[in-house]
Amino acid sequence: MQTINNLRIAYIGGGSMNWAWNLMSDLALEPMLSGVVRLYDINHGAALANEKIGNLIKDNPEVCGKWTYEAKASLKETLSDVDFVVISILPGTFDEMESDVHVPEKYGIYQSVGDTVGPGGIVRSMRTVPMYVEIANAIREYCPSAWVINYTNPMSVCMTTLYSVFPEIKAFGCCHELFHIKKVMAKMLMLEAGVKDVKGSDISLNVFGLNHFVWIDQAFYNTTDLMPIFNLFAQKYAESGFALDDSDKDETNSFRNNNKVCFDLYNRFGLIPAQGDRHTAEFMPPWYLESPEIVKKWGFSLTKVSDRKAMRVARLEESANIISGKEKFKIDPSGEEGLEQIKALLGLSSLITNVNIPNHGQVANLPIGAIVETNAVFSKDSVRPVFAGSIPPAINAMVSKHAQNQKNIVDAGIKKDLALAFSVFLNDSLMTLHIDKAEQLFREMIENTKGYLQGW
Amino acid sequence: MQTINNLRIAYIGGGSMNWAWNLMSDLALEPMLSGVVRLYDINHGAALANEKIGNLIKDNPEVCGKWTYEAKASLKETLSDVDFVVISILPGTFDEMESDVHVPEKYGIYQSVGDTVGPGGIVRSMRTVPMYVEIANAIREYCPSAWVINYTNPMSVCMTTLYSVFPEIKAFGCCHELFHIKKVMAKMLMLEAGVKDVKGSDISLNVFGLNHFVWIDQAFYNTTDLMPIFNLFAQKYAESGFALDDSDKDETNSFRNNNKVCFDLYNRFGLIPAQGDRHTAEFMPPWYLESPEIVKKWGFSLTKVSDRKAMRVARLEESANIISGKEKFKIDPSGEEGLEQIKALLGLSSLITNVNIPNHGQVANLPIGAIVETNAVFSKDSVRPVFAGSIPPAINAMVSKHAQNQKNIVDAGIKKDLALAFSVFLNDSLMTLHIDKAEQLFREMIENTKGYLQGW
Amino acid sequence: MQTINNLRIAYIGGGSMNWAWNLMSDLALEPMLSGVVRLYDINHGAALANEKIGNLIKDNPEVCGKWTYEAKASLKETLSDVDFVVISILPGTFDEMESDVHVPEKYGIYQSVGDTVGPGGIVRSMRTVPMYVEIANAIREYCPSAWVINYTNPMSVCMTTLYSVFPEIKAFGCCHELFHIKKVMAKMLMLEAGVKDVKGSDISLNVFGLNHFVWIDQAFYNTTDLMPIFNLFAQKYAESGFALDDSDKDETNSFRNNNKVCFDLYNRFGLIPAQGDRHTAEFMPPWYLESPEIVKKWGFSLTKVSDRKAMRVARLEESANIISGKEKFKIDPSGEEGLEQIKALLGLSSLITNVNIPNHGQVANLPIGAIVETNAVFSKDSVRPVFAGSIPPAINAMVSKHAQNQKNIVDAGIKKDLALAFSVFLNDSLMTLHIDKAEQLFREMIENTKGYLQGW
Amino acid sequence: MQTINNLRIAYIGGGSMNWAWNLMSDLALEPMLSGVVRLYDINHGAALANEKIGNLIKDNPEVCGKWTYEAKASLKETLSDVDFVVISILPGTFDEMESDVHVPEKYGIYQSVGDTVGPGGIVRSMRTVPMYVEIANAIREYCPSAWVINYTNPMSVCMTTLYSVFPEIKAFGCCHELFHIKKVMAKMLMLEAGVKDVKGSDISLNVFGLNHFVWIDQAFYNTTDLMPIFNLFAQKYAESGFALDDSDKDETNSFRNNNKVCFDLYNRFGLIPAQGDRHTAEFMPPWYLESPEIVKKWGFSLTKVSDRKAMRVARLEESANIISGKEKFKIDPSGEEGLEQIKALLGLSSLITNVNIPNHGQVANLPIGAIVETNAVFSKDSVRPVFAGSIPPAINAMVSKHAQNQKNIVDAGIKKDLALAFSVFLNDSLMTLHIDKAEQLFREMIENTKGYLQGW
Repeated sequence: MQTINNLRIAYIGGGSMNWAWNLMSDLALEPMLSGVVRLYDINHGAALANEKIGNLIKDNPEVCGKWTYEAKASLKETLSDVDFVVISILPGTFDEMESDVHVPEKYGIYQSVGDTVGPGGIVRSMRTVPMYVEIANAIREYCPSAWVINYTNPMSVCMTTLYSVFPEIKAFGCCHELFHIKKVMAKMLMLEAGVKDVKGSDISLNVFGLNHFVWIDQAFYNTTDLMPIFNLFAQKYAESGFALDDSDKDETNSFRNNNKVCFDLYNRFGLIPAQGDRHTAEFMPPWYLESPEIVKKWGFSLTKVSDRKAMRVARLEESANIISGKEKFKIDPSGEEGLEQIKALLGLSSLITNVNIPNHGQVANLPIGAIVETNAVFSKDSVRPVFAGSIPPAINAMVSKHAQNQKNIVDAGIKKDLALAFSVFLNDSLMTLHIDKAEQLFREMIENTKGYLQGW
Repeated sequence: MQTINNLRIAYIGGGSMNWAWNLMSDLALEPMLSGVVRLYDINHGAALANEKIGNLIKDNPEVCGKWTYEAKASLKETLSDVDFVVISILPGTFDEMESDVHVPEKYGIYQSVGDTVGPGGIVRSMRTVPMYVEIANAIREYCPSAWVINYTNPMSVCMTTLYSVFPEIKAFGCCHELFHIKKVMAKMLMLEAGVKDVKGSDISLNVFGLNHFVWIDQAFYNTTDLMPIFNLFAQKYAESGFALDDSDKDETNSFRNNNKVCFDLYNRFGLIPAQGDRHTAEFMPPWYLESPEIVKKWGFSLTKVSDRKAMRVARLEESANIISGKEKFKIDPSGEEGLEQIKALLGLSSLITNVNIPNHGQVANLPIGAIVETNAVFSKDSVRPVFAGSIPPAINAMVSKHAQNQKNIVDAGIKKDLALAFSVFLNDSLMTLHIDKAEQLFREMIENTKGYLQGW
Repeated sequence: MQTINNLRIAYIGGGSMNWAWNLMSDLALEPMLSGVVRLYDINHGAALANEKIGNLIKDNPEVCGKWTYEAKASLKETLSDVDFVVISILPGTFDEMESDVHVPEKYGIYQSVGDTVGPGGIVRSMRTVPMYVEIANAIREYCPSAWVINYTNPMSVCMTTLYSVFPEIKAFGCCHELFHIKKVMAKMLMLEAGVKDVKGSDISLNVFGLNHFVWIDQAFYNTTDLMPIFNLFAQKYAESGFALDDSDKDETNSFRNNNKVCFDLYNRFGLIPAQGDRHTAEFMPPWYLESPEIVKKWGFSLTKVSDRKAMRVARLEESANIISGKEKFKIDPSGEEGLEQIKALLGLSSLITNVNIPNHGQVANLPIGAIVETNAVFSKDSVRPVFAGSIPPAINAMVSKHAQNQKNIVDAGIKKDLALAFSVFLNDSLMTLHIDKAEQLFREMIENTKGYLQGW
Repeated sequence: MQTINNLRIAYIGGGSMNWAWNLMSDLALEPMLSGVVRLYDINHGAALANEKIGNLIKDNPEVCGKWTYEAKASLKETLSDVDFVVISILPGTFDEMESDVHVPEKYGIYQSVGDTVGPGGIVRSMRTVPMYVEIANAIREYCPSAWVINYTNPMSVCMTTLYSVFPEIKAFGCCHELFHIKKVMAKMLMLEAGVKDVKGSDISLNVFGLNHFVWIDQAFYNTTDLMPIFNLFAQKYAESGFALDDSDKDETNSFRNNNKVCFDLYNRFGLIPAQGDRHTAEFMPPWYLESPEIVKKWGFSLTKVSDRKAMRVARLEESANIISGKEKFKIDPSGEEGLEQIKALLGLSSLITNVNIPNHGQVANLPIGAIVETNAVFSKDSVRPVFAGSIPPAINAMVSKHAQNQKNIVDAGIKKDLALAFSVFLNDSLMTLHIDKAEQLFREMIENTKGYLQGW
């Protein structure tokens, strides 16, 4: 077995109790790698807490992947000479997010997530771009040849900023949203075609689009073409929906998903939306988000930021308990692909998976340079996109609008051009307000997030 | 004086009592040219009537431009070996146009013209594309090296169809919409800067965009930059509006225009919409067309198709009277540029004016091949676009959406792909209906125009 | 084990005693597949001979892949409803090839292969394009959704013709030239780094360019970057050369190769030519082909067509002996990848390998649509190119010239435009003659191949 | 009459006794303009001399255009807040130029001018790029909105450098080479078609290409198409040549031109080379420059740098005489277009003429951003290229190679990348040497110009 023993990973947003803990688990379970993880967080206390937790893991004799964790106080200390950079930050706090998601509701605009597009996604982008300008500059200065993995949303906006500021950056954006549709297809294959023991990871897809607005035009399980089966399936469950498990049926679950939006769009447009309905719905005109009642009818939920706040409180308690020894850190495979990608980039394996990177032509009818999501080949020191084809025109009319908006909001963020930002706000698919009302909403949301808009 | 004496012009839609009569007047007043005009119309009687009128003009001894008019019964006879083809047809009748314009009103969608975009423009496009497929094929067969001048709306859709079917065609689209803003600027210069005796034709503009959605970023009168003056002017008259003459103030006038939409968009976006407000408003979200009251507030009118029908009845009577000798055909300069363009193409003069042709890069950020409107140089046997620059991103977000729609509706019309046509209908800026309502409206409008949709 | 039992393969050039025999061997050894192979050849007798040989193989009880062979007399019978089409033809006879390769020698132009570029490659292209126009039309008519595998040279010209005539064709070009450099690298790794048991197929490359003029900018063996090792290796063996085996050293061997051209170009330009020296040298100015003495100095050979003729006589005898039972057909793995590609396209496996297909951006600085060679992912019903990057400018100056020539020679062949063909002839890298001499050579070569130039 | 009275013009290379004197004459004859011309030259004495001459002109009471001349010692003083910048410098001295032109002759490479392409043009480019980097930076800093007119050769390389360093620069390159062919056509029209009193400026051309390698595909005189007449003309004079005047026949004249290269290329390729034969010949393979004898046979001459040195000595004497009052400065219209362009940019007139600017698509098949020569419309504050079309493929194979070389030599110059520069040297059309000989020549030429290659 080949091993690599002194890997250096920088983690920006290293106080995270979600993505950071996932990575800690995965590293602990991986025998081929060891090294140091440097944790950076604007909340330095959170980074220190994770440092403690991480080093507790290392001391666990049953753990095969031995990693030292070090909280660092500056980007310089964190990034200097690292091999990999992981970025997973919350741009602002849940208070700003509360404004992003819930203020538009007063104006009749409902958002199921509010972190990518919609009024919330756009205002979130406005505070994110300047943060990523800083990160990109730091990477250029301290570790220009490191591989950079981004988990932060809005994904396309973060990635566009990184590449705008530092075009030679070796960055890609990683998103787990496609795991769900693969599981749905695996289950479909069992139910409708009687095939046994299919896992989501056995399904091969061709995908293209923008993060959280990705479409599938080919799906295979070995020699079986899944598209004809899905065609029947989407008709059969169009009305009732199809839930992977009971939690997806539960109306109190913020994240529930009955794939009804997915089936409806497939039945209308002929390709399969690849992400959960909560994300897809936000990219469309407000057909599925017109009102809370309509959302309910379509079998998904509006995420309340209060739920997210509550989750955070629970995690903080868990963190304290782990550090004090009251609780033990649970080392479970996260199911995420980040570590597999790192291993492939080191030459330890090879991998084809979906990823967000600049368009070099892999999506033939989106602009060159736009951050697009398609499959890519990961191998030693390279992530190379695989040609995915042309998005059919009826769908591309919707996709390309968002691509243009994402380009413009990044340019607005870099130049701090409020008029350009507002034009994106107006051009969003959920924006049905008259321009005067839209301007009032924009001003209110900007006011709520002004702590992060210095210089605009 | 150089003269050309045996020019052959084909006029498709030769029964027209508007554009055809304009051309007859202009030809009669032009000493450098003579020849034959062949008139073709699916209403052959209308062509015959114009044949008579045209030949009456020729017999008028005061007329210096001597032209024979011949009504022809087929495209083959009309087109064989001509030097120029003029196309100005009504795609369908005013009954279909009535459905285009007024049926959407039942659903709360108001259109001020309804012939270019909006639900009406899209359905009109659906019946126009097959007609232009036929015309393009006939031109390829019978007069492939003729110059083709299109006046029909939807301009971009007609032109896109001609070039899709016969890429080597020498066609351009001619539109007089910019004369108005030039007159406004001339008057502005007199009022605000005290310059005397300025005519609209003295104003030089740089324009870019799509026909009826063209924008101005440079305007000059000799050494004077008009943009700073317009900036003050647009603020000064933002509320009150500015009318060129009394008819523009008249609320009963279908075509009235107080430039308030123009000023509002200039004040928001920084460039000047180049066409009348009635056209501009239709390309925007329903900010200016939300309701008849809002339209009134913005100082323009909703064109009633009944008015157009009434105008047609009056013209028919005039035509009969001319033929019977009761009335005399009025030979006045039309103010249109068609004849000037023809002369320039013959090498008799040279001309720079705005025109609709495929994008070769003259608009840097619209797709290559899209029909765009910019200035072009007309000289002996060539129409060459002049580079106009990049549309600013906030405006281009709106323009490029319509460019994409126009491409898709032409493709839909060529393939007779109803689903693709409906996707364009959904993607229009005035379309705020939920998809189910939108589908209902689409079906109703399609039903009303089905006589022209064989094979869809 | 999944199996597919009624596959239909069409083989154009099915009388071949080289590629066709290779495929027969590979199919015989493959347990997952069976079906029918239809053989078409303008020399129908050759197809009939292979039909006999193929069916003899089937009757061999030790063979696990059971295939029926059927010689067909027309493209229609051959192609109707097949799943795969293999094309491997000789465009013309060895007599025309003799003119291609040896007539230029009288003018001081030496070619080591003469089938891709150089005067010979260009004239060969002139007779090949019309043949491929016919094949492309037949595929469109009889089996438009079949996968098409081309082995014929000039590869890029054949492929460009297929896609020009039938843009929706599912065709790719397969070339084994890279096996050699992989074996060299494997041996290098053993000699210079002491790594044991490395096979050529263990080496991963990133490649880009045109068939027979492909360049390597990344090479890996697991976690080992091979570029620094190659850098030392190329310097060490620059003078002496490095031969894989004794035959590569043998001066009488038409195909010998000491990699001296490869090392020299690497040392000058920084990337590794991926094919054997005989091919690379022909794409360059006559630095390596100035005279037979220079060729000898660089450690490779000028292929004599008389050798090819002799090989063909031997093969014909072998064929007769197999049919008469005197000899037994040798079933050995060919080492070619065609069958692996077919299996991947059926969903039975997945594969990343180099292939010739239209550029969708996989080579960022060659024209979109040019046939380029890069890696591609083969999976169920798809061949998707992998982004390979931008060719460094000093190298791309050479590569893009040939890309342009290949486009022009195909256009010339389709339009039968002799002047355009001659302009390509003039623009070739080996063409150092004054234009008058060049014209004389061109005429002489054209005369020799006129049997295949009807209509030019 | 509109007048503009305080125009500020900066002249870089202001010690010139050729272009600067031309401009002084033209300004003196122009009643609409007056102001100040700032003269900058690395030979400050030369600038001071021209300051004196310029102010002598001003004091001449017969002169209507009143201009003050001021020699400045730095780019900062010269450029601050000017309206126009004129650049006409000699990159290096005639000694470096002597090496550029004559050292390659020792290796059998003959150049008729040696300032654009060929070994001489490439080495000249290597010293020019760093100078233009400095100028572009100074313009960005001191007068970013000034219009910049470049006369220096190598034109495309100078212009590419300006736009690479400062993409928003408002620069264009002005070249008088087309006046000659227009005069030839005017004379042709008189001789062959009996048309009287035609001037070169009455001829309209469509041109495209690179400076000094421009091609004509349309030529008109009013309604007359000149191409069919030229077709006969080029055949008639192919052997004998056609000289505009006796000096063009004189074999001792460095600049003589009998248009034989022009006719030969027209007869072979179908378009007309737009510049004199001395320039055209250098862009081709050495068909016309193989040896001094061949050059003579084609009716043009190899420019000797000693002639240029002699001209310079004569001019220096003339300058001294003017300053001392022995001689009077001759105020004659230069025939150049620079002043007409300046007037059009001020809004005093409008003009369509050929110019060198970045490709926005005006040449459809050269790279976007390459400096190309086509017609452009000059009007108030804008130079807008006119779409010229696609260069036919046989010609574009030659043109695009030089476009690529020019891009690469500028990149080499900016990065001071000697290997990339040498690759351009190798890729030039006149370069027929084996790579080792080429390297020897390159080293020798570099050595001779090393005073201008600091940092390479």
